Amino acid sequence: MASTTPVIRHATREDVPAILSLIRELADYEHALDCVEATEETLAATIAFAPSDVTSPGPDGLPITEPVSPSKPARCLVLESPTSNQVVGMALYFYNYSTWRARPGIFLEDLYVKQSERKKGYGKRLLVELAKEVQAFKGGRLEWNVLKWNEPSIKFYESEAIGANMMSEWVGMRVDGQGLPKLAKLLD
Amino acid sequence: MASTTPVIRHATREDVPAILSLIRELADYEHALDCVEATEETLAATIAFAPSDVTSPGPDGLPITEPVSPSKPARCLVLESPTSNQVVGMALYFYNYSTWRARPGIFLEDLYVKQSERKKGYGKRLLVELAKEVQAFKGGRLEWNVLKWNEPSIKFYESEAIGANMMSEWVGMRVDGQGLPKLAKLLD
Repeated sequence: MASTTPVIRHATREDVPAILSLIRELADYEHALDCVEATEETLAATIAFAPSDVTSPGPDGLPITEPVSPSKPARCLVLESPTSNQVVGMALYFYNYSTWRARPGIFLEDLYVKQSERKKGYGKRLLVELAKEVQAFKGGRLEWNVLKWNEPSIKFYESEAIGANMMSEWVGMRVDGQGLPKLAKLLD
Repeated sequence: MASTTPVIRHATREDVPAILSLIRELADYEHALDCVEATEETLAATIAFAPSDVTSPGPDGLPITEPVSPSKPARCLVLESPTSNQVVGMALYFYNYSTWRARPGIFLEDLYVKQSERKKGYGKRLLVELAKEVQAFKGGRLEWNVLKWNEPSIKFYESEAIGANMMSEWVGMRVDGQGLPKLAKLLD
């Protein structure tokens, strides 16, 4: 009998086409496919990948990948279907920081499981893996954003199992596009 | 005549007491002084500091500090008053990532200028400095969160000069405290 437990591992460069495909599917679900500028080349240059021959995490529970850096801040877990061995889910994340706690944490930028592979607990498994990493480096928080209209996801995140709290009192601000060079030159 | 232009530089270990003082003042303003667990020791262990004898940024416009890493993801700009030469403001930040763009960015965790030093454009100067760094590493976004009730700050951020957009359609989710070990052990 085949295993029903999916393999979760850190992405290698060979996973880039699968990662891009998942990013595009998620953007489509979020009604924002037009916003996807990522290409295989830009993903390959900005994610800290695991070596192809290493099974992470290491013995200390921490991932083994290229070093993270300002220009390569992201790590990516991929989930392989136990039946097809194809990558059908991912959790792409980076390290954040709480000044109140003076402790690092993990910010989950994108969590996605293919539509055809839902209801198998894969999203939960990816979140558990990230919570384990936060614990392993003695971090303080696991955080992410969700679209307010995405009620099924919010219900899942707030469930007893996941135990997330909504940060309703905060709102995000963003400067991007032409706003960035404009702000950078404001005092010149 | 003394200069009216403040010095902005990356924090060194010697700035830790001033940084903690600013963190506590900001938390007090946010009605959350009880939430500050940071100490001089924990701040010293989790921020990537500049060497005491280096003026950053370097010639490429990028900061010169200890390497950032998962356990030390934060950098901190400090602003010195041109009259007292004391640290009166700071911008503590880390590197985030956009999957849609496959580009890194900066997330500003804490921006604070002492009450007595307001209305001098210091907050703006710190934001400009961060926008310059995003440009220098070809990043895509400068982002931060603001408390929804903090209307004076929101008005400032949305002003023509700063040019930030509010990300009203998103809400943050967080697992912390006892929720973290619980989630980490969910599938054991």
